[in-house]
Amino acid sequence: MLQASLTIDPAFTVGDVDPRLYGSFVEHMGRCVYTGIYEPGHPLADESGFRTDVADLTRDLGVPLIRYPGGNFVSGYRWEDGIGPVDERPTRLDLAWRSLETNRVGVDEFLPWARSVGAETMMAVNLGTRGIDAARDLIEYCNLPGGTYLSDLRRKNGSAEPHGIRTWCLGNEMDGPWQIGHKTAYEYGRLASETAKAMRLVDPSIELVACGSSNSSMPTFGSWEATMLGETYDQVDYVSMHAYYEQRGDDRDSFLACAVDMDRFIDAVIATADHVRAVGRRKKRLNISFDEWNVWYLKRFEGEANLAIREAPPLIEDVYSVTDAVVVGTMLNSLLRHADRVKIGCQAQLVNVIAPIMTTPGGAAWKQATYHPFALTSRYGRGTVLRVEPASPRHETKWLGEVPLLDAVAVQNEDGVSLFAVNRSQTSPMTVDVDLRAWPGYRVASHVMIADDDPEAVNTAENPERVVPRPVEVPAVDGGRVALELPALSWSLVRLERA
Amino acid sequence: MLQASLTIDPAFTVGDVDPRLYGSFVEHMGRCVYTGIYEPGHPLADESGFRTDVADLTRDLGVPLIRYPGGNFVSGYRWEDGIGPVDERPTRLDLAWRSLETNRVGVDEFLPWARSVGAETMMAVNLGTRGIDAARDLIEYCNLPGGTYLSDLRRKNGSAEPHGIRTWCLGNEMDGPWQIGHKTAYEYGRLASETAKAMRLVDPSIELVACGSSNSSMPTFGSWEATMLGETYDQVDYVSMHAYYEQRGDDRDSFLACAVDMDRFIDAVIATADHVRAVGRRKKRLNISFDEWNVWYLKRFEGEANLAIREAPPLIEDVYSVTDAVVVGTMLNSLLRHADRVKIGCQAQLVNVIAPIMTTPGGAAWKQATYHPFALTSRYGRGTVLRVEPASPRHETKWLGEVPLLDAVAVQNEDGVSLFAVNRSQTSPMTVDVDLRAWPGYRVASHVMIADDDPEAVNTAENPERVVPRPVEVPAVDGGRVALELPALSWSLVRLERA
Repeated sequence: MLQASLTIDPAFTVGDVDPRLYGSFVEHMGRCVYTGIYEPGHPLADESGFRTDVADLTRDLGVPLIRYPGGNFVSGYRWEDGIGPVDERPTRLDLAWRSLETNRVGVDEFLPWARSVGAETMMAVNLGTRGIDAARDLIEYCNLPGGTYLSDLRRKNGSAEPHGIRTWCLGNEMDGPWQIGHKTAYEYGRLASETAKAMRLVDPSIELVACGSSNSSMPTFGSWEATMLGETYDQVDYVSMHAYYEQRGDDRDSFLACAVDMDRFIDAVIATADHVRAVGRRKKRLNISFDEWNVWYLKRFEGEANLAIREAPPLIEDVYSVTDAVVVGTMLNSLLRHADRVKIGCQAQLVNVIAPIMTTPGGAAWKQATYHPFALTSRYGRGTVLRVEPASPRHETKWLGEVPLLDAVAVQNEDGVSLFAVNRSQTSPMTVDVDLRAWPGYRVASHVMIADDDPEAVNTAENPERVVPRPVEVPAVDGGRVALELPALSWSLVRLERA
Repeated sequence: MLQASLTIDPAFTVGDVDPRLYGSFVEHMGRCVYTGIYEPGHPLADESGFRTDVADLTRDLGVPLIRYPGGNFVSGYRWEDGIGPVDERPTRLDLAWRSLETNRVGVDEFLPWARSVGAETMMAVNLGTRGIDAARDLIEYCNLPGGTYLSDLRRKNGSAEPHGIRTWCLGNEMDGPWQIGHKTAYEYGRLASETAKAMRLVDPSIELVACGSSNSSMPTFGSWEATMLGETYDQVDYVSMHAYYEQRGDDRDSFLACAVDMDRFIDAVIATADHVRAVGRRKKRLNISFDEWNVWYLKRFEGEANLAIREAPPLIEDVYSVTDAVVVGTMLNSLLRHADRVKIGCQAQLVNVIAPIMTTPGGAAWKQATYHPFALTSRYGRGTVLRVEPASPRHETKWLGEVPLLDAVAVQNEDGVSLFAVNRSQTSPMTVDVDLRAWPGYRVASHVMIADDDPEAVNTAENPERVVPRPVEVPAVDGGRVALELPALSWSLVRLERA
């Protein structure tokens, strides 16, 4: 039995959770939009063609923000294709995913849908094939009340009220050679800065996200951020980060530790932003928009270049296991551990495409295993993040060296305290001795867990409840301490509430 | 009465204190060496000419490391001038301080003296007028046991055992236009890297310090570190920092808050080092050598250019007040708060030159007001630094904006816990509610304080005990909490020990 300990004390805080940490992402890619959130003719579609079963699952998932409409897609997108009478919209060739884009969903469809599921939209502008002009037109169309050509056009198109988009991404993964209109850090920095300036002239109340590195193994990682922020720092509010993890070969120990890499990646980007801040004698601190993250089995993906041109092809529809669910839990913990600087997070993507929600065209929608830690963390992980300083046994991994076996973070709010804890060991259960002396009068109200005899168990359309969180017996607090039992390879939510 | 609180809990740590955090600095400048530590003919001089009264005060001050022999002095220094028969050594013109350098003290005198007061020496090499050749000769002379021309020369000169110098500074303040042989960041980075390589070929066990910025208001601050570390990162272990603070005009509130600036400065240099680490995919982390820091009334200093050429002139002999002592306490707190990354600190300088110890030639040696917080922090501030997360009232300052009025840090070791606390308010006493629930069976064993009805009170040769720490009444721990009373403008050491 592994032995670990941690202390939960409201005097030791990380920072307040921005609810947008629990964002999601809808890209015009694969079946995320078409036959995902949107499927006219589906028995459960509403009058606008959106699937009410998917909307219900999205609402329950708890995503207060959705990034849209890409992703690589946005770097070739003409937003004007997606407005006006639907049957007059052009079908376009999307170069990012070599797909046919029918444009039946555009800003005037997506924004109301997002609002209907309780989410604001974080909109991306095209800095691949386009630039200042398309961006200033889009924000005028979306955010001005009326009295100009484009805002009046929106009103004419049926959206009387402005969409009021607060947060905007200045392009997507512009450091990536795969990106349409890929740029050097300096080229991107200059374009992003001038685009930001024009967008703020349209609506000074907006927040802007500059593209950081597509992942920490990019050859330009670090120098990209430094050069790009040297040009954009005063114009933007966030640096974006993207990270996907998967198990390589049989090295599950490294995969289970990937949040250690995520922590290091976040620390490195913060260091770079703070370095640029120091050089420029700036007072403003940039924060992080971790606007793409998830488990993604890239090794199973044939790659963009080999795709046949199709409409809404089933792309990267990874089926997630118990192990993936546990890993997603640790990635959420990593975001929470940096709640003082990471303000936005977007699990990529919402439906079908490496997603917590899956659909069958014309058929069912169901929850993947990874849906559950996300939904529970979003629900119970709002408030103030507490440092819990886990003292944990460690083991050696091939990829990341020595890592702690316990990954844990706590969040406090007026309803009580939530402890999110993962035992990374594949073989040994763990006892976690929790010091609760700072919480007199509190009890362990519940402990729900994702764990399974088969760590590769998955949910399917036929068996959608194979993997769900299950309550376990709750230990008593004794002398201000409680001993939690975490099985091998498990994710837990432990709730403390006033007795 | 101001109300503040903090929590002392061994579960929440910053890192272990490297004792070298309590280092000092002896430069061949003013009266630091000649009529400072060294004064043949003084009634209390030992057979080597070193003053035993100064050595005793140095030993009591608790300095485990002394940086030597500069400072600006080193950038024109020929170390060979300071070896061999004393009466054959040349008198040289020191360009840094326009002084006559008699070279009566050199490495073979200084190193044994430092050892005699319990300190190792951190040696600086001249990268101003010299470079690789002088550096590799000096380390061969100092660190090789024998069997080479220079190590045998040391033996012939009376030092049979090698000096065994572990830590070396690659020049001094090379970013400063005032420095002899001032260089651009790239020029310095290349020279430091190649010098480091050669020195490591002589002695692979050494640690090396690269020159960071001379202060945070240098126009090159930040970019200097990034460029210089781009060239030196893999060859060095520490980045140096220097900072001096003084009261400007009647703005004492800003001066009392200068540790807030010091915290920000340290955070910025760490961010830059970690940025360079990320760009280079390095595993090694660089630490900080804060090898010059103190209160220095630069406004009272006429400047290097106007000095008459003299031997051991009385240069920048600031007399320190109660206020300065309180500020020195907060600067030590700032170093402790960063104990995970700041491993070396050198208060500049040891004797006479902006120093805790003052001497009269032929006469007395005495302790300045600033001696006391340093000596007590060095004695009681070793072990593991604890995060105490002070919740403090704040006020607005002209220079630094809103700052907390309470500055506090705690250090734990087997003897107990030391809390170092400053009330920055000039007018209001403060009650600090300390949560000690993690320390059952502990009591407040003592509380000593520096505070005075006259915050400008100083020690002098005639009245050397005007400003000393004084014990105050010790409050009882009640229900795991204790209320400490901190007068306006005061520095405190509170000791917790097992009852």
